[in-house]
Amino acid sequence: MAEEQPAQIPPTQEPAAEGAEAKGPSKSELKKRAKEAEKAKKAAEKAAKQAELEAQKAAADVDFATEFYGKAPLNQSQSRTGRPRVQIASLNPNMDGETVLLRARVQTSRAQGNKMVFLNLRQRIDSVQALLTVTPEKVSKQMVKWTAGLQDESIVLVEGVVKKSPEIIKSATVGDVELHISQIHLVAGLESRLPFTVEDAARPETEIETNDEVQYKRVLLDTRLNNRIVDLRTQTNQAVFKLQHGISYFFREYLESKGFIEIHSPKLQGAATESGASVFKVGYFKGNAFLAQSPQLAKQMAIAADFERVYEIGPVFRAEDSNTHRHLTEFIGLDLEMVIEEHYHEVMELIDSLLKHVFKGLKEQYAKEIQAVNRQFPAEEFKWLDETLRLTFKQAVDILVEDGVDRSSLDDINTENEKRLGRLVKAKYDTDYFIVDKFPMELRPFYTMPDPEDPTVSNSYDFFMRGEEILSGAQRIHDPTLLAEKMRSKGVDPASMPAYLDAFKMGCPPHGGGGIGLERVLMLFLKLNNVRRASLFPRDPKRLEP
Amino acid sequence: MAEEQPAQIPPTQEPAAEGAEAKGPSKSELKKRAKEAEKAKKAAEKAAKQAELEAQKAAADVDFATEFYGKAPLNQSQSRTGRPRVQIASLNPNMDGETVLLRARVQTSRAQGNKMVFLNLRQRIDSVQALLTVTPEKVSKQMVKWTAGLQDESIVLVEGVVKKSPEIIKSATVGDVELHISQIHLVAGLESRLPFTVEDAARPETEIETNDEVQYKRVLLDTRLNNRIVDLRTQTNQAVFKLQHGISYFFREYLESKGFIEIHSPKLQGAATESGASVFKVGYFKGNAFLAQSPQLAKQMAIAADFERVYEIGPVFRAEDSNTHRHLTEFIGLDLEMVIEEHYHEVMELIDSLLKHVFKGLKEQYAKEIQAVNRQFPAEEFKWLDETLRLTFKQAVDILVEDGVDRSSLDDINTENEKRLGRLVKAKYDTDYFIVDKFPMELRPFYTMPDPEDPTVSNSYDFFMRGEEILSGAQRIHDPTLLAEKMRSKGVDPASMPAYLDAFKMGCPPHGGGGIGLERVLMLFLKLNNVRRASLFPRDPKRLEP
Repeated sequence: MAEEQPAQIPPTQEPAAEGAEAKGPSKSELKKRAKEAEKAKKAAEKAAKQAELEAQKAAADVDFATEFYGKAPLNQSQSRTGRPRVQIASLNPNMDGETVLLRARVQTSRAQGNKMVFLNLRQRIDSVQALLTVTPEKVSKQMVKWTAGLQDESIVLVEGVVKKSPEIIKSATVGDVELHISQIHLVAGLESRLPFTVEDAARPETEIETNDEVQYKRVLLDTRLNNRIVDLRTQTNQAVFKLQHGISYFFREYLESKGFIEIHSPKLQGAATESGASVFKVGYFKGNAFLAQSPQLAKQMAIAADFERVYEIGPVFRAEDSNTHRHLTEFIGLDLEMVIEEHYHEVMELIDSLLKHVFKGLKEQYAKEIQAVNRQFPAEEFKWLDETLRLTFKQAVDILVEDGVDRSSLDDINTENEKRLGRLVKAKYDTDYFIVDKFPMELRPFYTMPDPEDPTVSNSYDFFMRGEEILSGAQRIHDPTLLAEKMRSKGVDPASMPAYLDAFKMGCPPHGGGGIGLERVLMLFLKLNNVRRASLFPRDPKRLEP
Repeated sequence: MAEEQPAQIPPTQEPAAEGAEAKGPSKSELKKRAKEAEKAKKAAEKAAKQAELEAQKAAADVDFATEFYGKAPLNQSQSRTGRPRVQIASLNPNMDGETVLLRARVQTSRAQGNKMVFLNLRQRIDSVQALLTVTPEKVSKQMVKWTAGLQDESIVLVEGVVKKSPEIIKSATVGDVELHISQIHLVAGLESRLPFTVEDAARPETEIETNDEVQYKRVLLDTRLNNRIVDLRTQTNQAVFKLQHGISYFFREYLESKGFIEIHSPKLQGAATESGASVFKVGYFKGNAFLAQSPQLAKQMAIAADFERVYEIGPVFRAEDSNTHRHLTEFIGLDLEMVIEEHYHEVMELIDSLLKHVFKGLKEQYAKEIQAVNRQFPAEEFKWLDETLRLTFKQAVDILVEDGVDRSSLDDINTENEKRLGRLVKAKYDTDYFIVDKFPMELRPFYTMPDPEDPTVSNSYDFFMRGEEILSGAQRIHDPTLLAEKMRSKGVDPASMPAYLDAFKMGCPPHGGGGIGLERVLMLFLKLNNVRRASLFPRDPKRLEP
């Protein structure tokens, strides 16, 4: 069966045609002959194909590589060899000749003829080029074919030899080596079509706009978020969420070095507190509860309970129907509260040092991740000053007025004017980060301590990054009489918050603090332009999935 | 005015009485005289009091110490001297003679006559004895009187001289020095009566039970929780929540050293997932949302999104009407999930090492806090083995049967039998900590991977401390077909969780993990006997405040 049978080819019509020169065949005869010729050709092709298939089948019968490739059985923890697996990031030219084992995604595959296939293998933000070539007794044609047929995003377990690559491979992050595959097994395949490729999802907007020759697919934010699992696999997003972790890490590291302890305050509350922002209502057995819009009350109560310095990293909930680039209905608050010995600037300065510790940590220890994000989201490096610029609210208003903003519109500084202020400050001081202190009392919540001299001004501050607010904070009122008075003046019934007021009646030291939006810091540090990109599974008024 | 005026005393009646011996006064005369005498005595007393008052008033007029004591003005950040304040914990005999400034609570005060007052000053878990004595030109009688009148739990700013104390003062944690007060100001007083004293709240149950001479006030748990702010001030609770912080700290430290990153998954979910346990329903704009009962689905999705190793510390919500010593409706989950290379024991062993890292960290770095808690909650030291005891579910059942439990009741091991197992294991192996592996499939959720040999058994485990479960975990099903099949067999409609199933259809590596209840670990490590004591502001079906 393995021998090739020559396809039967009908004799050519030429001699007949020659003899028929004088008379010549009729038109219908010509048509008929052409038809027959066509038929014969098709039959020949079919026979050739058949022969090829049979040849392949024959070759398949002697596939010597079956053990070296294929679908692995479902891992149910059948066995444990303990054989080490390596990280792509650790591969380097010094390993030339070493055989390694690794698990990775197939980002792309490209066959060259039927004897060779190139794979781009990916682990998180790292990738390497791998190739498989038909080799007697080692790599069969079938093995190459099977590998070439692997769907993008398949997870494979690969054994191969590290080879120093003759020239840097630009399509991989580890470009100075390639992997010559000796074994490849499918650990997990796909049971569905990809909504978009990880390559498309990782392409910078600028490349899509400036490249006229190729029509790239643009993956819209909503499509990404609907298929967040695939979107999160881009090297950009792998880096974004490592950086998110970095922010919390440095936040904790700094505060713990300053004697803070972490607390966990309840998100379920008995009353809708801190009137103003809307709260979500929860069915709670036979009654109702409300989701905390911040750990504000709890952390102040912890201060009244002698905790001295506390922080919390946890979800906060806002039932505001705001559909903007910077609002989420659920986000992570980095909150802190501490006793004041003399002056609330003790808190403000501690928060300032804390944020600079975070910026410095990211810049120094996450350079690779920042670079990875920059490839898709180009941004000027985030800048701050050794001595942070501090403006009073009044000074900030003056700067805006000087730039042409109508003073009468500046009782509060709205989002647009905040950005303008950010640009003006950047131009003048070359910083993306500054503090505005001493906000008007009427812009702040009831628990804000008034200035000792001017009762219309408060001991409160906002911190800004690239012209957007990332932190609000203040000295709080620790005196129950003044607190109740301010509650009433802001339309809050003191009787509606008995446990909170009681905390101050039991004696509470002067204190202050602030709350930072984790996703906002991440968005603004990296200039991601939409806070949803800084949230693993973002929630907004229109999104509760995935 | 400063000179004392002798009180006017009426002449005694004695001479008249002598002369009247023969005749003797009439009964009515005697009565009248007695009345007059009484009247005169009262007048004398009144005059004496008046004189004393005037004397005091006179003395007050020349109080030379007014600057050294009194109520401080409300701190509104009027000024900032930057003068350092010390911690009680840092005071020691080498500082003998040094003048220090510190802010503290007055735990108790005890006047000795009108010239001396002893204060027990407290900062978190530390306390020191301070005394104030009338001293010419330095401490006035008025100053002593004012200080003696300070309500317990007042916050004071004290300047004083450290003195090596002649003998150890047992009522203070820093017993080898005392503080001789030169200035004392009230930073924050109380505007309400204390519901109970911090001393009463800190008293060990054993002391209340065994002491027949003194009738101590027992502060019940509900009273404590209703007035949690005061209850949290006990040295016990200050230590408990430092230890709570310690658990998270060591949890993170270990996982970060193993390449895990922290994620934050949304607590608001579009569907009520993981059927079985009840979920809280939330009004979400015009529709509904549900509170996550665990980050289970999100962390698995993070694995499908190539995060490799993730952890989360965050609130989880259980709408179960369980009113027991170990159930809360909101608690903190320490969750982790990781890719499995070959066998789920990779995860189980990592969790085991993680927990031992936590125990070791607490024991070595929080000895002082553990001791503080033990004073109120005496407990045998928590014990674990270098090589953790692992039982299979079957072995655990056998141990119970051998001890007399009816095998037919052991399809599941209930709370009572868990405790029994804990006691039996402790007696035999001298450990408070062990693992039970290979739970029956029917006891575990749909996403649990079945054993490769025996489909009635699963690749899952529970971890125990002092006979109570603190962690559940398993290898998860990463194959979407098998997952959908198991969902249906457990009565969950795969169509109700499309985003979750999609994650696996897009290719997901084998993985496993577990979830630890923070409060349970804390409760069991310290033997607090009620999980509410391990939660800052606990939530149960009957409690949403404070």
